[in-house]
Amino acid sequence: MNTLARRLTAEALGTGFLLAVVVGSGIMGERLDGGNVAIALLANTLATGAGLVVLILTFGPVSGAHFNPAVTLADALQGGISWKDAVVHMVAQLLGAFVGVAVAHGMFDLPLYAASTHARAGPSQWFSEFVATFGLLSIIWGCVRQRASAVPFVVGAYVTSAYWFTASTSFANPAVTLARAATNTFSGIRPGDAPGFVVAQLLGALVATTLFRWLLPTTRKAAS
Amino acid sequence: MNTLARRLTAEALGTGFLLAVVVGSGIMGERLDGGNVAIALLANTLATGAGLVVLILTFGPVSGAHFNPAVTLADALQGGISWKDAVVHMVAQLLGAFVGVAVAHGMFDLPLYAASTHARAGPSQWFSEFVATFGLLSIIWGCVRQRASAVPFVVGAYVTSAYWFTASTSFANPAVTLARAATNTFSGIRPGDAPGFVVAQLLGALVATTLFRWLLPTTRKAAS
Amino acid sequence: MNTLARRLTAEALGTGFLLAVVVGSGIMGERLDGGNVAIALLANTLATGAGLVVLILTFGPVSGAHFNPAVTLADALQGGISWKDAVVHMVAQLLGAFVGVAVAHGMFDLPLYAASTHARAGPSQWFSEFVATFGLLSIIWGCVRQRASAVPFVVGAYVTSAYWFTASTSFANPAVTLARAATNTFSGIRPGDAPGFVVAQLLGALVATTLFRWLLPTTRKAAS
Amino acid sequence: MNTLARRLTAEALGTGFLLAVVVGSGIMGERLDGGNVAIALLANTLATGAGLVVLILTFGPVSGAHFNPAVTLADALQGGISWKDAVVHMVAQLLGAFVGVAVAHGMFDLPLYAASTHARAGPSQWFSEFVATFGLLSIIWGCVRQRASAVPFVVGAYVTSAYWFTASTSFANPAVTLARAATNTFSGIRPGDAPGFVVAQLLGALVATTLFRWLLPTTRKAAS
Repeated sequence: MNTLARRLTAEALGTGFLLAVVVGSGIMGERLDGGNVAIALLANTLATGAGLVVLILTFGPVSGAHFNPAVTLADALQGGISWKDAVVHMVAQLLGAFVGVAVAHGMFDLPLYAASTHARAGPSQWFSEFVATFGLLSIIWGCVRQRASAVPFVVGAYVTSAYWFTASTSFANPAVTLARAATNTFSGIRPGDAPGFVVAQLLGALVATTLFRWLLPTTRKAAS
Repeated sequence: MNTLARRLTAEALGTGFLLAVVVGSGIMGERLDGGNVAIALLANTLATGAGLVVLILTFGPVSGAHFNPAVTLADALQGGISWKDAVVHMVAQLLGAFVGVAVAHGMFDLPLYAASTHARAGPSQWFSEFVATFGLLSIIWGCVRQRASAVPFVVGAYVTSAYWFTASTSFANPAVTLARAATNTFSGIRPGDAPGFVVAQLLGALVATTLFRWLLPTTRKAAS
Repeated sequence: MNTLARRLTAEALGTGFLLAVVVGSGIMGERLDGGNVAIALLANTLATGAGLVVLILTFGPVSGAHFNPAVTLADALQGGISWKDAVVHMVAQLLGAFVGVAVAHGMFDLPLYAASTHARAGPSQWFSEFVATFGLLSIIWGCVRQRASAVPFVVGAYVTSAYWFTASTSFANPAVTLARAATNTFSGIRPGDAPGFVVAQLLGALVATTLFRWLLPTTRKAAS
Repeated sequence: MNTLARRLTAEALGTGFLLAVVVGSGIMGERLDGGNVAIALLANTLATGAGLVVLILTFGPVSGAHFNPAVTLADALQGGISWKDAVVHMVAQLLGAFVGVAVAHGMFDLPLYAASTHARAGPSQWFSEFVATFGLLSIIWGCVRQRASAVPFVVGAYVTSAYWFTASTSFANPAVTLARAATNTFSGIRPGDAPGFVVAQLLGALVATTLFRWLLPTTRKAAS
């Protein structure tokens, strides 16, 4: 086990890079796509999926590479991390996420932050986020015990798929959701729409964790 | 070996997710592609291939992760699963598949079910499904004994390829075929055209299984 | 070691599937791409790269999964296969390749064979094929001894890359070249242009094999 | 440990191939994309990411497969390679890189060299290169000790992501930067803009190496 300072640094750095990847590749895609949004989303998908694999492999040995409060909470529910540690991990994730957005904006010559005007609300969007996060926690709990070394690839591949099969493009992460409210680009979400997403995500994580407690009885610890 | 209830839940959940991925990403692709069908199919391919790898890794340890009556029947032919278990597995796959279509429709704000008007019939379409399922069972039988841990990746990569090299976009799965008759979107098939696909798929599975019984003599159990 | 009948069947089946993938996905891409050739080539690339990984994993344990006379000749040069066996393997590859083209045409409702009118000639095309095959044999010899289990992925990833970085889209395979002369679709080559490609490919294979004999001295056997 | 001659040959060949891949696929993309730059960059990304994985797997066992003076310098800083060896490795990388550009031009029927007119300068471009190289060295140091066999895939996936999430398309390599000044095609950079990129890259590498010395204390040797 690494020191708390190292673990929090890893969570903040990893979540920061994740946001730089998501927001940055969205901006690049939308600048180059010639008006064809599907091409921008393909680029955004490729960058995010590949980036997630890399970040989880890099920071996993230090902090477990959650980068996601929904994953950290589910891990705490299963006893894999103490509630006290969970809280500081989530703070590190949030701080990292907002720094990551500013880094993306800096690279693309934009103001550090701007409130999004991208509307993402309504029952079908919330249902999408419920499904997206239910799926994310299902595949983590399904693989973490018997195929732990596959988890980085599984999470990257899952998000690659989920960007397209959900109507919300699968945020599936409360820290990512809040930070994406601070970018008025391709990947943004209106600040007022963020809470609905977060509630749906936490519900999805809770239901998946409960289900897999029955489906794979001895599962107890989250991805590393 | 897990209890029957767990195995059937895994087959239903996995097949349900597979249909949500196939149908959902088809809808997303067709909404964003600006009229360029190749881009929608690229997105549909990426989501399905990545999704399959993830689902097989997640549910394989519980149920073998067939998600496909053609695979379950071939496994029963080889003595890998009893005929009685095969029947209930196939029922679970079918139920899951139809729920998955409804989940996709729910995420994209569509009625739960709608009969497809997408015509897919004629000898070249049936030949495509024969080739697609012959190939699927070939690669499963070819890898399951000596490289079992590669099976999830092999199936995902095969379908990625087969979406493009067959004229039918490679359904290769009777449960998927029947459930896709219930969506009038990108990935649909007219209900009246489904039986032709299913017959071609079962023939392809039978020929591949017979061939590999000779080519790799000791192959006996299906993918897990 | 498998019986000769099994090995030849595996080489023919694998090369046949490879051609069905290359030619079939080319037809699909060109039918759907809305006139944007880059999108057709992206689809062709994705299908071929993923397909190759799958086919080498499936048939490797039976026959070594060469599917390519240039690889078989290089293997014979290094003593990995007898010259007599090499000849019959190459015959099996060629027969399989032509059957594969007919299968692709059958799936897309075209006459079984048609001479290509696609011009691919001149020094820069030949240089491209030299580089493409030099690279293919380099990466095979570079990986086969120390990272044999990576060879299927390496070959698939190499071809994915080479479709784009060479001006000829990297045929890199005499059997594939001759068979693609028999399809007047996206992936075709004029029959009169095929010999130039084959000569360049054999030279590339020879130079790479000679170079790696010095660079990795104990390399002696080809990919399996 | 291989002889110096073999190691330098591997570094030159590998870096040469890398440039042929980057420049060649850029030319192919821009010739076929029908004016949609995002599609050219997608092709460029796919070819480079897949190519890097292959090249690192192939030449890693001989020379460590740096192909990048920033990586070699960081490795020297950590004591993984002597400063004397580092210098000759960097010379081999540079020579290989320029030959690779000529090979790409030869395949696409262009003059061997041409100064680029593609402007890439200003603080946001330099910040992008700082972030890109900081990220590259972070993921190498993060994986090389505990997951060395994953390094080839991690580097390929990282560059796939970084082509899109940075505003500069992530050169992240001084040898690549200098050689790309000699091609007036898709991937070029004006010779006068190259020094700014190189300085930003070296700073990024230095900061990442210093950070990971604290974050993963026993890290000492670079990727192989």
